[in-house]
Amino acid sequence: MKAVILAAGKGERLSQGEGKSKPKPLIPLLGLSLLERAILSAKESGIYDFVLVVGYRSEEVVKYVEAKQKRLGVNIDFVENEEWEKGNGLSVLKARDALKEENFVLLMCDHVFDSSILNDLLAKARRNKGDKCILCVDNPENVFDLEDATKILLEKNKPKAIGKGVENYNAVDCGIFYCTSEMFDALEKEIGEGKYELSDAVQCLIDSDKLEVFDIGGRFWCDIDTHGSLEYAKLRMLKSLEKPTDGIISKYINRKVSRRITARIVNRNLTPTQITIISFLMALASATFFFLGEYKYLIIGGLLAQASSIIDGCDGEVARLKFLMTDYGAFVDSILDRYADAIIILGLIIGYCMLHGSISVWIIGLFAVLGSFMMSYTNARYEGVFEKTGGGRGIPVRRDMRLFIIMIGAFLNQVLGLLLLLAILTNTEVVRRVFSIKRIITKKKNKF
Amino acid sequence: MKAVILAAGKGERLSQGEGKSKPKPLIPLLGLSLLERAILSAKESGIYDFVLVVGYRSEEVVKYVEAKQKRLGVNIDFVENEEWEKGNGLSVLKARDALKEENFVLLMCDHVFDSSILNDLLAKARRNKGDKCILCVDNPENVFDLEDATKILLEKNKPKAIGKGVENYNAVDCGIFYCTSEMFDALEKEIGEGKYELSDAVQCLIDSDKLEVFDIGGRFWCDIDTHGSLEYAKLRMLKSLEKPTDGIISKYINRKVSRRITARIVNRNLTPTQITIISFLMALASATFFFLGEYKYLIIGGLLAQASSIIDGCDGEVARLKFLMTDYGAFVDSILDRYADAIIILGLIIGYCMLHGSISVWIIGLFAVLGSFMMSYTNARYEGVFEKTGGGRGIPVRRDMRLFIIMIGAFLNQVLGLLLLLAILTNTEVVRRVFSIKRIITKKKNKF
Repeated sequence: MKAVILAAGKGERLSQGEGKSKPKPLIPLLGLSLLERAILSAKESGIYDFVLVVGYRSEEVVKYVEAKQKRLGVNIDFVENEEWEKGNGLSVLKARDALKEENFVLLMCDHVFDSSILNDLLAKARRNKGDKCILCVDNPENVFDLEDATKILLEKNKPKAIGKGVENYNAVDCGIFYCTSEMFDALEKEIGEGKYELSDAVQCLIDSDKLEVFDIGGRFWCDIDTHGSLEYAKLRMLKSLEKPTDGIISKYINRKVSRRITARIVNRNLTPTQITIISFLMALASATFFFLGEYKYLIIGGLLAQASSIIDGCDGEVARLKFLMTDYGAFVDSILDRYADAIIILGLIIGYCMLHGSISVWIIGLFAVLGSFMMSYTNARYEGVFEKTGGGRGIPVRRDMRLFIIMIGAFLNQVLGLLLLLAILTNTEVVRRVFSIKRIITKKKNKF
Repeated sequence: MKAVILAAGKGERLSQGEGKSKPKPLIPLLGLSLLERAILSAKESGIYDFVLVVGYRSEEVVKYVEAKQKRLGVNIDFVENEEWEKGNGLSVLKARDALKEENFVLLMCDHVFDSSILNDLLAKARRNKGDKCILCVDNPENVFDLEDATKILLEKNKPKAIGKGVENYNAVDCGIFYCTSEMFDALEKEIGEGKYELSDAVQCLIDSDKLEVFDIGGRFWCDIDTHGSLEYAKLRMLKSLEKPTDGIISKYINRKVSRRITARIVNRNLTPTQITIISFLMALASATFFFLGEYKYLIIGGLLAQASSIIDGCDGEVARLKFLMTDYGAFVDSILDRYADAIIILGLIIGYCMLHGSISVWIIGLFAVLGSFMMSYTNARYEGVFEKTGGGRGIPVRRDMRLFIIMIGAFLNQVLGLLLLLAILTNTEVVRRVFSIKRIITKKKNKF
């Protein structure tokens, strides 16, 4: 499957005067240009071949994409539409030869969207046998700039009219299409009549009953036309970085801070792995201060442990925003987290032991390390089951909470107490999991 | 899919005089009767409905199965063949009404087999669209009692003749069939002519080109007709308990002992979970002796650690032999193993610390615990990848080796040394894995 991306228009409202600013496709949004984002979103759905229609300041756009091509990891054919000012329908038609009569996906370079939308659109297209095109639509209530949106009137889920000026509408066009050759037939007909806009051709498809719609069900998309919509998209995308498996501390404290940090560092050349390592080094620094034992150092150590916990969220956030998630990255992160956990506790133990000379802190500390491990181990062994039941159930003593407890315990100068608390909470939760997983597995079996 | 199991014959050569011994289907083999084994092997392939044809001492067989039915977890219809002495073809025909014209699997209660054979036979049957029956065949070289086997002549993989007396043969009948209604047509025809053996009907299927064969590719099966074949099957099945992921110590020492223990305890009512708990308690006992610190106790602790490691293999072996494997059982086993590992090392640390008063043993011991844990954690996080690449690569310091090192170290009274060795080997192996997994993942990606 190929995707055609329209990147020929001028996008006047976003640029600040010709020459000075970037062409619209190259405008950055959270670490990636709009065009990179469109390509990588489609790549998430398994699309590796692209036809890029350029027009306005095409040389700059082509040069930019060629420089990025290796990192993007996809094949890109460029098609130039010198008459881009006439309308975007003409840009689609120009892509025809590059497509070799295959069906294709049509995207706008200035639309950002949740990649799962395209995934589901393609799944629907695979189920469809006929030659109808499919257009993604959303509820008007979800649209940032409704005035500027392309409206659609649906009757019994069938499209009846499309256009910016449609008065009675109950849906809007998200700018994500699945197209068959019917699209080109419609474009030729309309352009022959001097109508150069894509929505003219779509109206033609509607009239000949060759268009279906796919409701994206409230998922995120945004047409970036103004500075306002750019800011809106940024906020929505940062907000979406929360994970359903986030623990309490993560949800109410760490994410709020890490998102702000991520918004700043995502534009830099820091890779997620580098951020993982920074977080690990902060944990080592925390352990070193704990090791020194005195109260004033405990406070610094506690702050560093919590800071490391926050930064530990940023690697995943940057990876998700820049399409850099890899299984390997998650793997290395989890390994370093386990070592960091153990070394922080080791720092606490030695620091305490040197001041008070107690052996019991070692035993309690070892059980705190063991319990922390076992939390992660039970998770890894039953990832599917635990992820579905969520982190909220049971004793909420995942990593975010454990490092938070360590900080608070250090502030209160209660090293032995915090280690005891960790040892009890984590190991109790492991026992609870062993019993609760039995119920879950038995339930699953009974479903057969 | 239903399975018909023939359990009507007498099996004279196995019984030791009527009245004294059990009917053949009830003869035990490694903790299960032959009949239970046939039913549970088929259940592994998703068959939950059975037609059991009984004849000789039918009352005893029915009573036995009814008592076991709940544990078996399948539906069983009984069909009595009072004329069982005439031949086993008649027994199959008697099952006809109970099958309601469905295709079915036909098994002999006195044949044991690797359950994957049936799985693959059913997969082949699903691919076949026609009405041909399929018979599992094996290379004559693999057969325990070739004289007694039903021979088959294949030409270009097509069966030409079947029977005990076939002179030119190049395959043998494994007694595992996939049958369509053609089987009953053939049986009726042959029985009408006074030929009551199943192989008569199979010859009839061959003559009308309604039989295909499926080569089981050297996998284990055995026709239990004599005490000799019973012993042979027992040895082969115990031998098969080795796992490709077994470590060096496990392969060359632990399995050899654990198999012998399993062969004895499999006939008792010990559940795999109970064996898991016994192994865990032995580890706790080992830790207690280590805790006492003196050399004479170290030796006992070392022996107990190694014994616990051996018994840790028996739970899985018993589970596999008795079809009691569950994900939950494996989960609980892995949790208790991790606690056992940590507690044994804790025992070593405290014992050493009390005698020598050193703090360094704590730090080294904690890294030994950490490394041991990380070995299992990396495994759990990348189960698929590690299982495929096997346990043999890298530093062989899996659990079997770790407990062996602990025993040897205890014998040599070198607690600090063994902990240091464990800490270095395990953590080095974890680092190696982190780098090697990157190569494996990258290779996988390049295959796309």
